[in-house]
Amino acid sequence: MPTVHAYAAQNASSPLAPFQIERREVGEGDVQLEILYSGVCHSDIHQARSEWGPALYPMVPGHEIVGRVTAVGERVGRFQVGDLAGVGVMVDSCQHCDSCAEGLEQYCENGHTTTYNSREKPSGNLTFGGYSTSIVVREEFVLSVPGSLDLKAVAPLLCAGITMYSPLRNWKIGPGHRIGVVGLGGLGHMGIKLAAAMGAEVTLFTTSASKADDALRLGAHHVVVSSDRAAMKSARSSFDFILSTVPTSHDLNPYLGTLRREGHLVIVGAIDPVGVHGGVLIAQRRSVAGSNIGGLAETQEMLDFCARHGIVADIELIAMQDINAAYERMVKNDVKYRFVIDMASLKGEQAAD
Amino acid sequence: MPTVHAYAAQNASSPLAPFQIERREVGEGDVQLEILYSGVCHSDIHQARSEWGPALYPMVPGHEIVGRVTAVGERVGRFQVGDLAGVGVMVDSCQHCDSCAEGLEQYCENGHTTTYNSREKPSGNLTFGGYSTSIVVREEFVLSVPGSLDLKAVAPLLCAGITMYSPLRNWKIGPGHRIGVVGLGGLGHMGIKLAAAMGAEVTLFTTSASKADDALRLGAHHVVVSSDRAAMKSARSSFDFILSTVPTSHDLNPYLGTLRREGHLVIVGAIDPVGVHGGVLIAQRRSVAGSNIGGLAETQEMLDFCARHGIVADIELIAMQDINAAYERMVKNDVKYRFVIDMASLKGEQAAD
Repeated sequence: MPTVHAYAAQNASSPLAPFQIERREVGEGDVQLEILYSGVCHSDIHQARSEWGPALYPMVPGHEIVGRVTAVGERVGRFQVGDLAGVGVMVDSCQHCDSCAEGLEQYCENGHTTTYNSREKPSGNLTFGGYSTSIVVREEFVLSVPGSLDLKAVAPLLCAGITMYSPLRNWKIGPGHRIGVVGLGGLGHMGIKLAAAMGAEVTLFTTSASKADDALRLGAHHVVVSSDRAAMKSARSSFDFILSTVPTSHDLNPYLGTLRREGHLVIVGAIDPVGVHGGVLIAQRRSVAGSNIGGLAETQEMLDFCARHGIVADIELIAMQDINAAYERMVKNDVKYRFVIDMASLKGEQAAD
Repeated sequence: MPTVHAYAAQNASSPLAPFQIERREVGEGDVQLEILYSGVCHSDIHQARSEWGPALYPMVPGHEIVGRVTAVGERVGRFQVGDLAGVGVMVDSCQHCDSCAEGLEQYCENGHTTTYNSREKPSGNLTFGGYSTSIVVREEFVLSVPGSLDLKAVAPLLCAGITMYSPLRNWKIGPGHRIGVVGLGGLGHMGIKLAAAMGAEVTLFTTSASKADDALRLGAHHVVVSSDRAAMKSARSSFDFILSTVPTSHDLNPYLGTLRREGHLVIVGAIDPVGVHGGVLIAQRRSVAGSNIGGLAETQEMLDFCARHGIVADIELIAMQDINAAYERMVKNDVKYRFVIDMASLKGEQAAD
């Protein structure tokens, strides 16, 4: 099997370091990509540090991958060598359950295979993500990347972008809707851009008044500082829809109170307990839901939507060798708004070996 | 103003005792009822004991009222003297906000007036509920009661019935849906009857295996004992919709795990914090919502639905004088499934005064 240069964590406490991995041969339904850019998602840190249940090591994180096709299997129809392509959070699913049949592979009833920290079926081999120079993925899980956008800033669309796009589409958000986005990070900044492009009136809820100017620049129409009790009170019962991007346990009740009758608050980040008071839901038939990334067809739709609207992520480009320092900065929320690894830096290291 | 015999709590710790109240004169838009039966709702206890925030005393509980019209104002068109009629949880609302305009008076943006423990607008007089011999209510908040049903067993439909009917209708439950009802009490037993009559496949979740036979008799198709981990595991991802009737703080996560993709769990009883884990929602785009009784048009629809299907509550008829003992039994869940007060008992007491 071809050997590929990568950065890996060897256990929950080790920093990421150079590591050789093996990728499978290009099968008849596979697409091989040379990875050009790989976004750095907060979940990379959670998983590398085994904070989301037992993790699989060695781990090569990265599920916001943009690259160029270098080989295709004989049955591949949608891609040819030289095409720009992307890979997101998933690389496989059962393809026959009701969810897969509806294009909702993220809810595959038999469990989808994630791009890293997972095992290929049926081989059982570990999957390895985007912090590497190339990857082989079955065609159904490869996205077509529009050439009109800044490629390095497209990478975060494959996770952060689709994670916000899918709930906005599922709950049919558009003109005439007042929506809120809780938190201005990698997810939140994409939520503002996408919701504004869909025609909604967008408010950022943030704990940091200092983020107001940036939120308005990104397309938000209003900013509410969530620690300002008077501002929260005057926002009561005024939103149709709220997306909470907060990645940890948090109290939803102050935000729930700002929803109108039959409004929805959708959690996309917190896989922990969240504070919900029955009375706040009952009072106005409000609801709290969860949403997980998006299916492949919807991810392609999102990329095409972004191409039409000229939407990409705000990023800071780093070298592969800077990844551990980048993780430290992310833990302190010190990034606007997504680190993206320039994989040329890893190819350079490889050449120097 | 006419004086009416009633039973009232004078403060949070006093037992209910005979008390004279004043009812307003019958206005041009009002209907006066002789109260025949009054259901006893668990919320009567919560409010009489000031367990739901500061209560207003003297308090005459009761919001499941069935009676006969004894007078109507000159502008009243839907009722005439001698008609059977009912009053539920609300006696007034603003009638002009969006919610009222849509027939959702329970979500009135200016706050509806409850049948007791509230103040009439604009007079500011206390409202007094069904533990009394007569009541005067504006026509819009009076229901027409079908004569074909057992009247004493109709009373609980006005709160317990509509509280279950409204979410089943709002989420469009019918044939082909697998639904769960959590808890077999006044609400739960109505939920089973109504959902089964709508054509759904109904499962009772209960902590008491001893309730299984009764649940099946009421119309449930299956019973899952929620403390049985194997049974809960085999129920995973199998329900479209769950109604939780648990009246206090409880952990929703075990039930959420039994919902299919995009399934809804609706809370109707607990106005307290409930346990919700973000990951359980995100995993299958599940949601938790709340629902509050039902609007007037929907309450009338529910009464007509019950008449068509021959549905009433399972009740135990008591005398007004037994109310304090009944409360003690309800606190121990010792009632199948609703106490209803025969108001003839209070008229007898009145005559003996």
